Amino acid sequence: MNTSLKLEDYLSELSSSAPTPGGGNVAALCGVLASSLGVMVCNLTIGKKKYAEVENEMRDLLIKLESAKNDFLRLAEEDNQAFNKVMEAFKLPKETDEEKKNRAKKIDEATFEAAVVPSRVIKTCRITIPYIETAAEKGNQNSLSDAGVAASLINTAAEGAFLNVMINCTSLSNRIVGEELLKKSEVILDEVKSSSEKIIKNIKSKLNPV
Amino acid sequence: MNTSLKLEDYLSELSSSAPTPGGGNVAALCGVLASSLGVMVCNLTIGKKKYAEVENEMRDLLIKLESAKNDFLRLAEEDNQAFNKVMEAFKLPKETDEEKKNRAKKIDEATFEAAVVPSRVIKTCRITIPYIETAAEKGNQNSLSDAGVAASLINTAAEGAFLNVMINCTSLSNRIVGEELLKKSEVILDEVKSSSEKIIKNIKSKLNPV
Repeated sequence: MNTSLKLEDYLSELSSSAPTPGGGNVAALCGVLASSLGVMVCNLTIGKKKYAEVENEMRDLLIKLESAKNDFLRLAEEDNQAFNKVMEAFKLPKETDEEKKNRAKKIDEATFEAAVVPSRVIKTCRITIPYIETAAEKGNQNSLSDAGVAASLINTAAEGAFLNVMINCTSLSNRIVGEELLKKSEVILDEVKSSSEKIIKNIKSKLNPV
Repeated sequence: MNTSLKLEDYLSELSSSAPTPGGGNVAALCGVLASSLGVMVCNLTIGKKKYAEVENEMRDLLIKLESAKNDFLRLAEEDNQAFNKVMEAFKLPKETDEEKKNRAKKIDEATFEAAVVPSRVIKTCRITIPYIETAAEKGNQNSLSDAGVAASLINTAAEGAFLNVMINCTSLSNRIVGEELLKKSEVILDEVKSSSEKIIKNIKSKLNPV
Protein backbone atom coordinates (compact mmCIF):
# COMPACT_ATOMS: atom_id res chain seq x y z
CA MET A 1 0.00 0.00 0.00
CA ASN A 2 1.29 3.44 -0.90
CA THR A 3 1.77 4.97 2.54
CA SER A 4 3.52 8.05 1.16
CA LEU A 5 0.02 9.31 0.30
CA LYS A 6 -1.32 12.05 2.52
CA LEU A 7 -4.26 10.93 4.68
CA GLU A 8 -6.51 13.50 2.97
CA ASP A 9 -5.62 12.14 -0.47
CA TYR A 10 -6.21 8.55 0.62
CA LEU A 11 -9.60 9.56 2.04
CA SER A 12 -10.63 11.42 -1.10
CA GLU A 13 -9.57 8.51 -3.34
CA LEU A 14 -11.53 6.19 -1.06
CA SER A 15 -14.63 8.40 -1.24
CA SER A 16 -14.45 8.71 -5.03
CA SER A 17 -15.86 6.34 -7.63
CA ALA A 18 -12.31 5.29 -8.59
CA PRO A 19 -12.05 1.48 -8.54
CA THR A 20 -9.45 1.45 -5.75
CA PRO A 21 -9.09 1.71 -2.83
CA GLY A 22 -12.34 0.03 -1.76
CA GLY A 23 -13.68 -1.96 1.15
CA GLY A 24 -11.11 -4.77 0.79
CA ASN A 25 -8.27 -2.31 1.06
CA VAL A 26 -9.85 -0.67 4.12
CA ALA A 27 -10.31 -4.07 5.78
CA ALA A 28 -6.57 -4.70 5.45
CA LEU A 29 -5.89 -1.15 6.67
CA CYS A 30 -7.85 -2.00 9.84
CA GLY A 31 -5.29 -4.75 10.40
CA VAL A 32 -2.51 -2.17 9.93
CA LEU A 33 -4.12 0.17 12.49
CA ALA A 34 -4.67 -2.68 14.97
CA SER A 35 -1.05 -3.86 14.70
CA SER A 36 0.19 -0.27 15.07
CA LEU A 37 -1.84 0.15 18.27
CA GLY A 38 -0.36 -3.14 19.50
CA VAL A 39 3.14 -1.83 18.78
CA MET A 40 2.24 1.32 20.69
CA VAL A 41 1.24 -0.71 23.75
CA CYS A 42 4.61 -2.53 23.57
CA ASN A 43 6.44 0.80 23.30
CA LEU A 44 4.54 2.10 26.33
CA THR A 45 5.56 -1.00 28.30
CA ILE A 46 9.22 -1.49 27.36
CA GLY A 47 11.61 0.33 29.69
CA LYS A 48 9.04 0.77 32.47
CA LYS A 49 10.25 -0.51 35.88
CA LYS A 50 6.80 -1.80 36.73
CA TYR A 51 6.87 -4.07 33.67
CA ALA A 52 10.50 -5.21 33.85
CA GLU A 53 9.32 -8.81 34.19
CA VAL A 54 7.68 -8.80 30.75
CA GLU A 55 10.31 -6.61 29.07
CA ASN A 56 11.72 -9.40 26.87
CA GLU A 57 8.30 -10.72 26.00
CA MET A 58 7.21 -7.22 24.98
CA ARG A 59 10.29 -6.81 22.78
CA ASP A 60 9.46 -10.06 20.98
CA LEU A 61 5.83 -9.06 20.72
CA LEU A 62 6.77 -5.73 19.17
CA ILE A 63 8.70 -7.50 16.41
CA LYS A 64 5.79 -9.86 15.73
CA LEU A 65 3.33 -6.97 15.58
CA GLU A 66 5.59 -4.97 13.26
CA SER A 67 5.71 -7.99 10.98
CA ALA A 68 1.90 -8.34 11.07
CA LYS A 69 1.60 -4.64 10.26
CA ASN A 70 3.80 -5.13 7.19
CA ASP A 71 1.79 -8.18 6.11
CA PHE A 72 -1.44 -6.19 6.34
CA LEU A 73 0.15 -3.30 4.41
CA ARG A 74 1.21 -5.70 1.65
CA LEU A 75 -2.26 -7.27 1.55
CA ALA A 76 -3.86 -3.82 1.33
CA GLU A 77 -1.78 -3.18 -1.79
CA GLU A 78 -2.51 -6.64 -3.20
CA ASP A 79 -6.22 -6.01 -2.75
CA ASN A 80 -5.97 -2.91 -4.95
CA GLN A 81 -4.00 -4.85 -7.58
CA ALA A 82 -6.40 -7.78 -7.57
CA PHE A 83 -9.41 -5.51 -8.00
CA ASN A 84 -7.73 -3.65 -10.84
CA LYS A 85 -7.11 -6.98 -12.60
CA VAL A 86 -10.80 -7.84 -12.38
CA MET A 87 -11.62 -4.45 -13.94
CA GLU A 88 -9.07 -5.06 -16.73
CA ALA A 89 -10.52 -8.48 -17.49
CA PHE A 90 -14.00 -6.96 -17.88
CA LYS A 91 -12.59 -4.60 -20.52
CA LEU A 92 -11.31 -7.45 -22.74
CA PRO A 93 -12.92 -7.74 -26.21
CA LYS A 94 -16.06 -9.88 -26.49
CA GLU A 95 -16.89 -9.93 -30.21
CA THR A 96 -16.01 -13.47 -31.30
CA ASP A 97 -16.83 -16.69 -29.45
CA GLU A 98 -13.17 -17.20 -28.72
CA GLU A 99 -12.86 -13.70 -27.28
CA LYS A 100 -15.93 -14.27 -25.14
CA LYS A 101 -14.51 -17.53 -23.84
CA ASN A 102 -11.11 -15.98 -23.12
CA ARG A 103 -12.72 -12.97 -21.41
CA ALA A 104 -14.90 -15.17 -19.18
CA LYS A 105 -11.85 -17.23 -18.20
CA LYS A 106 -9.79 -14.13 -17.37
CA ILE A 107 -12.63 -12.59 -15.34
CA ASP A 108 -12.96 -15.85 -13.43
CA GLU A 109 -9.24 -16.10 -12.68
CA ALA A 110 -9.02 -12.47 -11.57
CA THR A 111 -12.14 -12.78 -9.44
CA PHE A 112 -10.75 -15.85 -7.71
CA GLU A 113 -7.52 -13.96 -6.92
CA ALA A 114 -9.66 -11.07 -5.61
CA ALA A 115 -11.24 -13.58 -3.20
CA VAL A 116 -7.91 -15.14 -2.18
CA VAL A 117 -6.36 -11.84 -1.08
CA PRO A 118 -9.02 -11.06 1.59
CA SER A 119 -8.94 -14.71 2.69
CA ARG A 120 -5.27 -14.06 3.50
CA VAL A 121 -6.27 -10.96 5.45
CA ILE A 122 -8.51 -13.17 7.60
CA LYS A 123 -5.63 -15.62 8.18
CA THR A 124 -3.34 -12.75 9.17
CA CYS A 125 -6.01 -11.61 11.65
CA ARG A 126 -5.94 -15.06 13.24
CA ILE A 127 -2.16 -14.81 13.56
CA THR A 128 -2.38 -11.29 15.03
CA ILE A 129 -5.21 -11.61 17.55
CA PRO A 130 -3.15 -13.58 20.15
CA TYR A 131 -0.52 -10.81 19.98
CA ILE A 132 -3.20 -8.26 20.83
CA GLU A 133 -4.38 -10.53 23.64
CA THR A 134 -0.86 -10.62 25.12
CA ALA A 135 -0.53 -6.85 24.79
CA ALA A 136 -3.83 -6.43 26.68
CA GLU A 137 -2.95 -8.95 29.38
CA LYS A 138 0.70 -8.18 30.03
CA GLY A 139 1.30 -4.74 28.53
CA ASN A 140 0.99 -1.36 30.22
CA GLN A 141 -2.43 -1.40 31.89
CA ASN A 142 -2.87 2.33 31.26
CA SER A 143 -3.17 1.33 27.60
CA LEU A 144 -5.93 -1.23 28.08
CA SER A 145 -8.39 0.79 26.01
CA ASP A 146 -5.86 0.98 23.17
CA ALA A 147 -5.46 -2.80 23.17
CA GLY A 148 -9.26 -3.04 23.13
CA VAL A 149 -9.54 -0.76 20.11
CA ALA A 150 -6.94 -2.99 18.42
CA ALA A 151 -8.98 -6.13 19.20
CA SER A 152 -12.11 -4.53 17.77
CA LEU A 153 -10.21 -3.44 14.66
CA ILE A 154 -8.93 -6.97 14.04
CA ASN A 155 -12.52 -8.18 14.13
CA THR A 156 -13.53 -5.55 11.56
CA ALA A 157 -10.51 -6.43 9.41
CA ALA A 158 -11.60 -10.07 9.34
CA GLU A 159 -15.31 -9.35 8.98
CA GLY A 160 -14.72 -6.80 6.23
CA ALA A 161 -12.34 -9.15 4.43
CA PHE A 162 -14.89 -11.96 4.68
CA LEU A 163 -17.51 -9.84 2.88
CA ASN A 164 -14.94 -9.37 0.12
CA VAL A 165 -14.26 -13.12 -0.07
CA MET A 166 -18.02 -13.57 -0.32
CA ILE A 167 -18.79 -11.02 -3.05
CA ASN A 168 -16.02 -12.50 -5.21
CA CYS A 169 -16.67 -16.18 -4.50
CA THR A 170 -20.34 -15.95 -5.32
CA SER A 171 -19.62 -14.58 -8.78
CA LEU A 172 -17.22 -17.38 -9.75
CA SER A 173 -18.40 -19.71 -12.51
CA ASN A 174 -17.07 -22.66 -10.51
CA ARG A 175 -19.21 -22.37 -7.38
CA ILE A 176 -17.54 -25.36 -5.72
CA VAL A 177 -14.10 -23.69 -5.58
CA GLY A 178 -15.75 -20.55 -4.24
CA GLU A 179 -17.76 -22.41 -1.62
CA GLU A 180 -14.63 -24.11 -0.35
CA LEU A 181 -12.69 -20.88 0.13
CA LEU A 182 -15.76 -19.28 1.71
CA LYS A 183 -16.24 -22.12 4.20
CA LYS A 184 -12.58 -22.10 5.25
CA SER A 185 -12.60 -18.33 5.65
CA GLU A 186 -15.78 -18.41 7.71
CA VAL A 187 -14.27 -20.90 10.18
CA ILE A 188 -11.26 -18.60 10.71
CA LEU A 189 -13.49 -15.50 10.93
CA ASP A 190 -15.50 -17.16 13.71
CA GLU A 191 -12.30 -17.87 15.64
CA VAL A 192 -11.12 -14.29 15.24
CA LYS A 193 -14.52 -12.90 16.25
CA SER A 194 -14.74 -14.95 19.45
CA SER A 195 -11.14 -14.12 20.41
CA SER A 196 -11.79 -10.44 19.82
CA GLU A 197 -14.97 -10.53 21.92
CA LYS A 198 -13.18 -12.37 24.72
CA ILE A 199 -10.35 -9.80 24.79
CA ILE A 200 -12.78 -6.86 24.88
CA LYS A 201 -14.86 -8.52 27.60
CA ASN A 202 -11.76 -9.03 29.76
CA ILE A 203 -10.67 -5.44 29.21
CA LYS A 204 -14.11 -4.13 30.20
CA SER A 205 -14.11 -6.18 33.39
CA LYS A 206 -10.65 -4.84 34.28
CA LEU A 207 -11.70 -1.25 33.54
CA ASN A 208 -14.95 -1.37 35.46
CA PRO A 209 -14.80 -4.11 38.08
CA VAL A 210 -18.24 -4.45 39.66
CA MET B 1 -7.29 15.82 12.67
CA ASN B 2 -4.24 16.74 10.63
CA THR B 3 -4.97 14.94 7.37
CA SER B 4 -2.05 16.58 5.59
CA LEU B 5 0.12 13.97 7.34
CA LYS B 6 1.39 11.14 5.19
CA LEU B 7 -0.16 7.77 6.05
CA GLU B 8 3.30 6.41 6.96
CA ASP B 9 3.91 9.30 9.37
CA TYR B 10 0.50 8.86 10.98
CA LEU B 11 1.19 5.13 11.41
CA SER B 12 4.62 5.68 12.93
CA GLU B 13 3.28 8.31 15.35
CA LEU B 14 0.52 5.88 16.27
CA SER B 15 3.00 3.05 16.89
CA SER B 16 5.28 5.24 18.98
CA SER B 17 5.05 5.96 22.69
CA ALA B 18 4.06 9.57 21.92
CA PRO B 19 0.89 10.46 23.85
CA THR B 20 -1.16 11.04 20.69
CA PRO B 21 -2.62 9.66 18.51
CA GLY B 22 -3.96 6.74 20.54
CA GLY B 23 -6.95 4.41 20.56
CA GLY B 24 -9.51 7.20 20.92
CA ASN B 25 -8.18 8.92 17.83
CA VAL B 26 -8.24 5.64 15.88
CA ALA B 27 -11.83 4.98 16.97
CA ALA B 28 -12.87 8.33 15.48
CA LEU B 29 -10.78 7.55 12.37
CA CYS B 30 -12.83 4.36 11.93
CA GLY B 31 -15.87 6.65 11.68
CA VAL B 32 -14.04 8.70 9.03
CA LEU B 33 -13.23 5.55 7.02
CA ALA B 34 -16.81 4.25 7.33
CA SER B 35 -18.30 7.56 6.16
CA SER B 36 -15.82 7.71 3.27
CA LEU B 37 -16.85 4.22 2.14
CA GLY B 38 -20.47 5.35 2.38
CA VAL B 39 -19.69 8.37 0.18
CA MET B 40 -17.98 5.99 -2.27
CA VAL B 41 -21.13 3.85 -2.51
CA CYS B 42 -23.15 7.03 -3.24
CA ASN B 43 -20.65 8.07 -5.92
CA LEU B 44 -20.90 4.60 -7.51
CA THR B 45 -24.69 4.91 -7.58
CA ILE B 46 -25.27 8.50 -8.72
CA GLY B 47 -25.50 8.83 -12.51
CA LYS B 48 -26.20 5.13 -13.09
CA LYS B 49 -29.35 4.47 -15.19
CA LYS B 50 -30.20 1.41 -13.11
CA TYR B 51 -30.39 3.59 -9.99
CA ALA B 52 -32.12 6.64 -11.48
CA GLU B 53 -35.00 6.15 -9.05
CA VAL B 54 -32.79 6.71 -6.00
CA GLU B 55 -30.58 9.38 -7.59
CA ASN B 56 -31.90 12.25 -5.45
CA GLU B 57 -31.87 10.17 -2.28
CA MET B 58 -28.24 9.22 -2.96
CA ARG B 59 -27.30 12.86 -3.52
CA ASP B 60 -28.81 13.77 -0.13
CA LEU B 61 -27.15 10.78 1.48
CA LEU B 62 -23.76 11.79 0.10
CA ILE B 63 -24.07 15.22 1.74
CA LYS B 64 -25.06 13.65 5.07
CA LEU B 65 -22.15 11.21 4.94
CA GLU B 66 -19.68 13.97 4.03
CA SER B 67 -20.91 15.87 7.06
CA ALA B 68 -20.54 12.78 9.29
CA LYS B 69 -17.01 12.31 7.93
CA ASN B 70 -16.15 15.89 8.91
CA ASP B 71 -17.67 15.40 12.37
CA PHE B 72 -15.54 12.29 12.91
CA LEU B 73 -12.43 14.11 11.67
CA ARG B 74 -13.08 16.94 14.14
CA LEU B 75 -13.64 14.45 16.97
CA ALA B 76 -10.40 12.62 16.09
CA GLU B 77 -8.56 15.92 16.54
CA GLU B 78 -10.48 16.75 19.74
CA ASP B 79 -9.50 13.37 21.14
CA ASN B 80 -5.81 14.21 20.68
CA GLN B 81 -6.32 17.62 22.30
CA ALA B 82 -8.27 16.20 25.25
CA PHE B 83 -5.61 13.58 25.91
CA ASN B 84 -2.84 16.18 25.75
CA LYS B 85 -4.71 18.27 28.34
CA VAL B 86 -4.82 15.28 30.70
CA MET B 87 -1.06 14.88 30.26
CA GLU B 88 -0.51 18.60 30.94
CA ALA B 89 -2.60 18.45 34.10
CA PHE B 90 -0.49 15.57 35.42
CA LYS B 91 2.60 17.77 34.99
CA LEU B 92 1.25 20.53 37.26
CA PRO B 93 3.21 21.20 40.47
CA LYS B 94 2.22 19.20 43.55
CA GLU B 95 4.37 20.62 46.37
CA THR B 96 1.91 22.58 48.50
CA ASP B 97 -1.56 21.45 49.55
CA GLU B 98 -3.08 24.10 47.36
CA GLU B 99 -1.06 22.91 44.38
CA LYS B 100 -2.10 19.34 45.04
CA LYS B 101 -5.76 20.37 45.23
CA ASN B 102 -5.52 22.44 42.05
CA ARG B 103 -3.70 19.64 40.22
CA ALA B 104 -6.28 17.05 41.23
CA LYS B 105 -9.08 19.37 40.08
CA LYS B 106 -7.41 20.01 36.71
CA ILE B 107 -6.74 16.30 36.17
CA ASP B 108 -10.37 15.56 36.94
CA GLU B 109 -11.68 18.23 34.58
CA ALA B 110 -9.38 17.14 31.77
CA THR B 111 -10.22 13.47 32.31
CA PHE B 112 -13.94 14.21 32.15
CA GLU B 113 -13.44 16.06 28.84
CA ALA B 114 -11.40 13.07 27.59
CA ALA B 115 -14.47 10.90 28.34
CA VAL B 116 -16.93 13.34 26.75
CA VAL B 117 -15.14 13.39 23.37
CA PRO B 118 -15.46 9.61 22.75
CA SER B 119 -19.06 9.73 24.02
CA ARG B 120 -19.68 12.16 21.13
CA VAL B 121 -18.03 9.70 18.75
CA ILE B 122 -20.58 7.09 19.85
CA LYS B 123 -23.43 9.55 19.26
CA THR B 124 -22.08 10.36 15.80
CA CYS B 125 -22.00 6.61 15.09
CA ARG B 126 -25.70 6.42 15.94
CA ILE B 127 -26.39 9.27 13.52
CA THR B 128 -24.29 7.65 10.78
CA ILE B 129 -25.38 4.02 10.93
CA PRO B 130 -28.80 4.60 9.26
CA TYR B 131 -26.96 6.33 6.39
CA ILE B 132 -24.83 3.23 5.91
CA GLU B 133 -27.99 1.12 6.05
CA THR B 134 -29.56 3.19 3.25
CA ALA B 135 -26.36 2.95 1.19
CA ALA B 136 -26.44 -0.85 1.57
CA GLU B 137 -30.14 -1.17 0.78
CA LYS B 138 -30.57 1.30 -2.06
CA GLY B 139 -27.06 2.01 -3.33
CA ASN B 140 -25.16 0.19 -6.08
CA GLN B 141 -25.48 -3.50 -5.24
CA ASN B 142 -22.00 -4.19 -6.65
CA SER B 143 -20.74 -2.23 -3.64
CA LEU B 144 -22.58 -4.28 -1.02
CA SER B 145 -19.34 -5.51 0.52
CA ASP B 146 -18.09 -1.90 0.81
CA ALA B 147 -21.26 -0.90 2.67
CA GLY B 148 -20.71 -3.92 4.92
CA VAL B 149 -17.14 -2.90 5.73
CA ALA B 150 -18.52 0.56 6.58
CA ALA B 151 -21.11 -0.97 8.94
CA SER B 152 -18.45 -3.02 10.68
CA LEU B 153 -16.22 0.05 10.98
CA ILE B 154 -18.98 2.08 12.62
CA ASN B 155 -19.33 -0.67 15.20
CA THR B 156 -15.60 -0.56 15.92
CA ALA B 157 -15.69 3.24 16.09
CA ALA B 158 -18.43 3.05 18.75
CA GLU B 159 -16.93 0.10 20.62
CA GLY B 160 -13.45 1.64 20.61
CA ALA B 161 -14.83 4.99 21.72
CA PHE B 162 -16.76 3.29 24.52
CA LEU B 163 -13.56 1.76 25.92
CA ASN B 164 -12.16 5.29 26.00
CA VAL B 165 -15.23 6.63 27.80
CA MET B 166 -14.75 3.79 30.27
CA ILE B 167 -11.03 4.21 31.00
CA ASN B 168 -11.57 7.92 31.65
CA CYS B 169 -14.83 7.68 33.60
CA THR B 170 -13.48 5.09 35.99
CA SER B 171 -10.61 7.35 37.00
CA LEU B 172 -12.83 10.35 37.83
CA SER B 173 -13.00 11.32 41.50
CA ASN B 174 -16.73 11.83 41.15
CA ARG B 175 -17.80 8.31 40.18
CA ILE B 176 -21.47 9.29 39.88
CA VAL B 177 -20.84 11.70 36.99
CA GLY B 178 -18.70 9.05 35.31
CA GLU B 179 -21.27 6.29 35.78
CA GLU B 180 -23.96 8.46 34.23
CA LEU B 181 -21.95 9.19 31.07
CA LEU B 182 -20.93 5.54 30.87
CA LYS B 183 -24.52 4.28 31.14
CA LYS B 184 -25.77 6.68 28.48
CA SER B 185 -22.91 5.76 26.16
CA GLU B 186 -23.52 2.05 26.64
CA VAL B 187 -27.18 2.37 25.64
CA ILE B 188 -26.18 4.11 22.41
CA LEU B 189 -23.35 1.63 21.78
CA ASP B 190 -25.85 -1.25 22.05
CA GLU B 191 -28.10 0.43 19.47
CA VAL B 192 -25.17 0.95 17.10
CA LYS B 193 -23.97 -2.62 17.56
CA SER B 194 -27.32 -4.20 16.81
CA SER B 195 -27.88 -1.95 13.78
CA SER B 196 -24.43 -2.81 12.46
CA GLU B 197 -25.05 -6.55 12.94
CA LYS B 198 -28.42 -6.29 11.20
CA ILE B 199 -26.92 -4.50 8.19
CA ILE B 200 -24.12 -7.06 7.85
CA LYS B 201 -26.55 -9.97 8.21
CA ASN B 202 -28.74 -8.54 5.44
CA ILE B 203 -25.73 -8.00 3.19
CA LYS B 204 -24.56 -11.57 3.74
CA SER B 205 -27.96 -12.97 2.86
CA LYS B 206 -28.02 -10.89 -0.33
CA LEU B 207 -24.49 -11.98 -1.27
CA ASN B 208 -25.03 -15.66 -0.64
CA PRO B 209 -28.71 -16.51 -0.88
CA VAL B 210 -29.19 -20.12 0.18
